[in-house]
This record gives sequence, structure tokens and C-alpha cells, in this order.
Amino acid sequence: MSTNAGMRGLLESGMPFAARTGIKVLKLDRENIELLMPLTPNINHIGIMYAGALFTLGEMMGGAVALVYLFEHSLIPIVKSFSIKFVKPGTTDITTSYVMPAEEVKRIIAECEEKGKADYSIQLELKDKTGLVVAVTDGLYQVRPQKK
Amino acid sequence: MSTNAGMRGLLESGMPFAARTGIKVLKLDRENIELLMPLTPNINHIGIMYAGALFTLGEMMGGAVALVYLFEHSLIPIVKSFSIKFVKPGTTDITTSYVMPAEEVKRIIAECEEKGKADYSIQLELKDKTGLVVAVTDGLYQVRPQKK
Repeated sequence: MSTNAGMRGLLESGMPFAARTGIKVLKLDRENIELLMPLTPNINHIGIMYAGALFTLGEMMGGAVALVYLFEHSLIPIVKSFSIKFVKPGTTDITTSYVMPAEEVKRIIAECEEKGKADYSIQLELKDKTGLVVAVTDGLYQVRPQKK
Repeated sequence: MSTNAGMRGLLESGMPFAARTGIKVLKLDRENIELLMPLTPNINHIGIMYAGALFTLGEMMGGAVALVYLFEHSLIPIVKSFSIKFVKPGTTDITTSYVMPAEEVKRIIAECEEKGKADYSIQLELKDKTGLVVAVTDGLYQVRPQKK
């Protein structure tokens, strides 16, 4: 429990930029990771969620995935590239969820042991509170062993 | 001058999300638009600029372009899609600049008059203070006449 609380804290307030958005961790375990971006602090010039907040919601999933599945192996993530398509205006808080398949976790760990690094990609749907998809994202990440 | 100051204010503090990053407008006229993202408030878990701050720097150029070239025609922008490739770690303040060719401005205005909307894309290099490219971005925007 304390480890999980520590991970939530890292994601919600470990990085000033993300903390300022008010991002929240709703679920954070191997069976499901779910993140929420609140609308109110992140509205744009036309009263909907700013693109950068949607980017941050999607991008932070890469960090959450690394914490949940890879951090115990001392693997640290960076994002290599990221694309986002804005489908509908975000007019409520927005959530996204992801589960990494067990075989993908195994592949990443094995590849890191063999090559010293491994890439993984995460595709997400970002949804409003009615379930409407407001954006889709595709992020490419790389993990490497933490330097000692 | 006062119009220009008003535009700077809109970009730097008109949107809470962008204001929280500390983004600065260095130049804002038809001959050059230059934006700066400060490092210090935007560092990530490994001490470099967070990906979301680089996204915001690149994405805000679309708004700056609309303000400088298109706002006098009452055209309001939205971003449709955005991709960013992270090339090198951002270890200083980061800047980016852009000039929209006059013929592209004419095309957008003409297309809006004819079809009620027009798309435009902006490719950028985001550079550190030594001129090193830390990220490249490609944003697709759409403008439509402001609703009355």
C-alpha cells in the first residue's frame, strides 16, 4: 500500500509541470492504470480542455506504466516521440486507462537485460465522462537501467 | 504597440495552463514570431525539460500565428493533430521561431471566405541556447470565422 501511495505521489506531484495540471491517479496496479485530467484548471481560449493537458494525460501514462511494471527492475523511461489527434472538444474531466500485457512486460525486461535498452509504444483513447473519445494518442518510450 | 502587448498577454497569460509553464513571447510580428519555454519550472524526473513543456512551446506557435496573421480577419484556431519527436535532452531554456509566408496567409484567408474553414500546418525546430535541436514538431491547425 505504501509503495502504491508513493507511486501515486510521484505521478501526481513528483514533477512540477504535471502537478500544476491537477492530474489524478484513479487506479494504479497491474490490472489497470487509470489517470484523470481535470477540466477546470486546464480550459483554453474557447472553454474546452487545452491540447497540452490532453497531451500530458496521455504522455504521463508512459511514466505510470514504467512505475507499475518496470520500476522494480530499476528501468527508467524517456519518451522518444508522441502523436495526438484531437477528435472532439473535451468539455468534462478526461480519463484514460491502460493495461500492459504480461508478455510485453517480459519482452521489455528481457530486451533491457540483453541490449541495455528497450522501446515500447502505448496507444490510448482519452475519454470524457460520457465515454466519448476526445483524443487518441500514440507514444513511443524507451527504458534503460537506472545509472548507479 | 498596445495591440501587440495585448497579443503577448493573451499568449503568456490568457490560458492558465500555458501561463503556469512560464512561456514567454520574445518576438511577435509578421517578420518573426519567437517563443521561449523556461527550463526551471518545467524540469522532469531526470532534470531535463518535461515533454509536455516542449509540446506546449510548439503547440502555442499555432495560436501565435493565428493572432499575428489571422486574428484581424476574426479567424479562431483549433489544433487538429500534433506530433513531436524528442531528439536531444532539453537542458536549457528552449526557443522556437516561425514566419508564415505571405502566400500561405492569403490562401488561408481565401479558403475561409470560400469554405468557412481552412487548415494549415506548422513544422518547427525547438532549440536550446546553443542552437541544438532538442525536438521537432508538426502541428495541424484549423481556423474558422469567429461566431457572432
